[in-house]
Amino acid sequence: MSVPTVMPGPAVTRTFAEFVADTGWSDLPEPTRRAARRTFGNAVALAVGASRDGAVDRVAAALGVLGQPEHATVLGRTGRVGVEAAALLNGFAAHLEDFDDTHLPTVVHPGAPIAPAALALAELRGGDGATVLTAMAVGIEVALRFGNGVCPEHFDRAWHLTGTAGHIGAAAAAGRILGLDPDRLVAAIGLGATTASGLTAALGTMTKPFHPGKAAADGVQAALLAERGLTGPAAPIEGRRGFARLSSPRVDPDRMLEGLGARWELEDNAFKPYACGIVSHPVIDAAIELRDRIPDADAVRSVEVDVHPVVLDVMGQLDPQDGLSTKFSVTHCFAVGLLEGAGGPEQFSGSRARRPDVVALRDRVRCVTDRGTRKGSARVAVELTDGTVLRSEIEHATGSAERPMTDAQLLAKARLVVGPVLGPGTDALLSTAFALDGADVAELTARSMPA
Amino acid sequence: MSVPTVMPGPAVTRTFAEFVADTGWSDLPEPTRRAARRTFGNAVALAVGASRDGAVDRVAAALGVLGQPEHATVLGRTGRVGVEAAALLNGFAAHLEDFDDTHLPTVVHPGAPIAPAALALAELRGGDGATVLTAMAVGIEVALRFGNGVCPEHFDRAWHLTGTAGHIGAAAAAGRILGLDPDRLVAAIGLGATTASGLTAALGTMTKPFHPGKAAADGVQAALLAERGLTGPAAPIEGRRGFARLSSPRVDPDRMLEGLGARWELEDNAFKPYACGIVSHPVIDAAIELRDRIPDADAVRSVEVDVHPVVLDVMGQLDPQDGLSTKFSVTHCFAVGLLEGAGGPEQFSGSRARRPDVVALRDRVRCVTDRGTRKGSARVAVELTDGTVLRSEIEHATGSAERPMTDAQLLAKARLVVGPVLGPGTDALLSTAFALDGADVAELTARSMPA
Repeated sequence: MSVPTVMPGPAVTRTFAEFVADTGWSDLPEPTRRAARRTFGNAVALAVGASRDGAVDRVAAALGVLGQPEHATVLGRTGRVGVEAAALLNGFAAHLEDFDDTHLPTVVHPGAPIAPAALALAELRGGDGATVLTAMAVGIEVALRFGNGVCPEHFDRAWHLTGTAGHIGAAAAAGRILGLDPDRLVAAIGLGATTASGLTAALGTMTKPFHPGKAAADGVQAALLAERGLTGPAAPIEGRRGFARLSSPRVDPDRMLEGLGARWELEDNAFKPYACGIVSHPVIDAAIELRDRIPDADAVRSVEVDVHPVVLDVMGQLDPQDGLSTKFSVTHCFAVGLLEGAGGPEQFSGSRARRPDVVALRDRVRCVTDRGTRKGSARVAVELTDGTVLRSEIEHATGSAERPMTDAQLLAKARLVVGPVLGPGTDALLSTAFALDGADVAELTARSMPA
Repeated sequence: MSVPTVMPGPAVTRTFAEFVADTGWSDLPEPTRRAARRTFGNAVALAVGASRDGAVDRVAAALGVLGQPEHATVLGRTGRVGVEAAALLNGFAAHLEDFDDTHLPTVVHPGAPIAPAALALAELRGGDGATVLTAMAVGIEVALRFGNGVCPEHFDRAWHLTGTAGHIGAAAAAGRILGLDPDRLVAAIGLGATTASGLTAALGTMTKPFHPGKAAADGVQAALLAERGLTGPAAPIEGRRGFARLSSPRVDPDRMLEGLGARWELEDNAFKPYACGIVSHPVIDAAIELRDRIPDADAVRSVEVDVHPVVLDVMGQLDPQDGLSTKFSVTHCFAVGLLEGAGGPEQFSGSRARRPDVVALRDRVRCVTDRGTRKGSARVAVELTDGTVLRSEIEHATGSAERPMTDAQLLAKARLVVGPVLGPGTDALLSTAFALDGADVAELTARSMPA
């Protein structure tokens, strides 16, 4: 009698490994290439934009204590650090503002954990821009497909998929940069799976952006260990004791592999117009839409926000005390949308968390979640002091799959965050970051540094 | 309406943090001090013993690519590396032979993930021997108590506790080395919880010892990040989305805290006499006991090994092809016990995996698990070619809580593994490693290096 370690069904990890090894830039359909360019450019812009934040300084100081060889670039900062540290800092910064990107079916934010792993390792070991984009694309594809096969149960169990799926995808991307063969890619992906982690308890704290940073750094390490022949299990994702089965009560291996290489999940990666948890985005749209019809916020007696229960589950920090926790407050989202007509990093900064007009308006918002409102939509009713009731319904939020951000909108957002850091160097960086397949990695990293 | 992020019940993480901050060497009862000295000495001996293994070379080569500052010692090797790399390599090596230690109620092997975190960080930041032992002791205590509150369900879900609990304990130990206050210790332990990971799919591969190595390295990083003020959740272990609830269908927070500081789980850490999965140890005892009564292995017609089902679940690799997988083969355990009267690293090396007499005897062993045999015991019946049936029953294995290894036995084991590496320097290292509270860290690390 022997105990099976592989479950009946397709060899998911092995199939992923072969896909990662065998896919080149020329194999990507043009819409996938466009999605890859936008995902990479968006992540780079966000990383540069947050690079001077105090939270990034803290991480940089802690890693600095460890002693850093000058191998790789921290985007937006001067000086170089080790490859793992660069991957961690870039992943951390890219996700810090919660302004990056989202694969809506799984709620993975794939750019932050995966693009920095490919980039930092390419700085050490070589790799042109198209190779970095390819590595990122196949890594993201593996991460999203892992997510498809375990969601929503894995998400419902409260795993932060940007950390868990991010680990698996970052290891695959880093392995692709090193040109590993399928056997070693199975080991690398396995190391990604056995380090996969991240609690949604961390939402609203600096530990949340640490998740993609850690995923990126661990992915780099996984690929280097696999390159040297570290051995691992044959089926670390789908096996009887693989990560999918440990972390989710339901696993669908067939769904993970369905159409692999033909149909790209990466194309469904959506870009965030607002710097907060994505499930509140329709609420901000509604607030902005109502703003023109409301003479003055003081005229608001009460607000009823009707959303899917997941919104309150994720965005339930109704009395946030600092910038990061406002990003997970649905009432704060409504308040800044109405008061300022915007939802950028500034609206979710520490200064806004306790501003009296914001607090006063937040306190007048009541949430209801029991009316069958669909995920991704919102219905808002505002009662004014004169008794008037104004309503707004948002069926699909800005930036959703149904209303994707155009290239021009995405570039405008990138300029918004990069401008304060790079000033006149902003467009030079963005022209490289959003077209990396025609550029060198060294050109990108040089342009990412402030003058 | 606000969503609770902390469950009703005790504040486990906060209580752990206060315990870690407030406990000094003088607070440990003498039996706990003895357990701490033995746990540390045993881990150091195992790390030195495995330091020349090819698997350690692979990890060292991979991490070397990243560029290593000379801050900390890889036990048994010459040259120094960064603190995270030292923690990873020492944790990897200490667990590589599966010959280290076990807290039987949780099956955590606590020395390998936690001692190296405290040691490597003390090399960087200072800390005498007693401080390192104290940090290790409180870190282990936190890890084992986490385990007590989620086992057996967390283990049954197939998490490798040496990786998961090891992360939490290593972060606590590293935080104690840095002298963090309780607030920062909550953050450090939270970073341990949000990186906690490790799949039992990895049993029998090099990824298994990677788990404690990674736990040690991540613990160091967690403490350094917390020291710089990285923020995290208030209840990362016991909260609604804390690691305990994500990873186990049942969580008992009261059990985690019961008697904390008065009754030490560390005292129940048992030391392994055999270099393989601990649940097979009674089978080896039985084989050794039968050996004197069997004239010749060729006279064995068949063997029936009657054990608890967990043995086959963990040790079910019945046709192992390399050294690491023999460590998870109950049939291999019986075969080498009978053929060689021993179960040290040599009996679980690659040369034994395919040796014809070992393979032939393994093939004659049949396992039964349905007769109600208790965990930790074994009944073996050997039928000889002349029809004679010989029986052996082991109620408690050597090294179990009921039959613990004496100091002399533990020292003999340590000499066995260290001798081939350090030769005449062996006793000097062991006299320091097993009495670290009276020694300097620098003395220990100097003595760990080969001449």
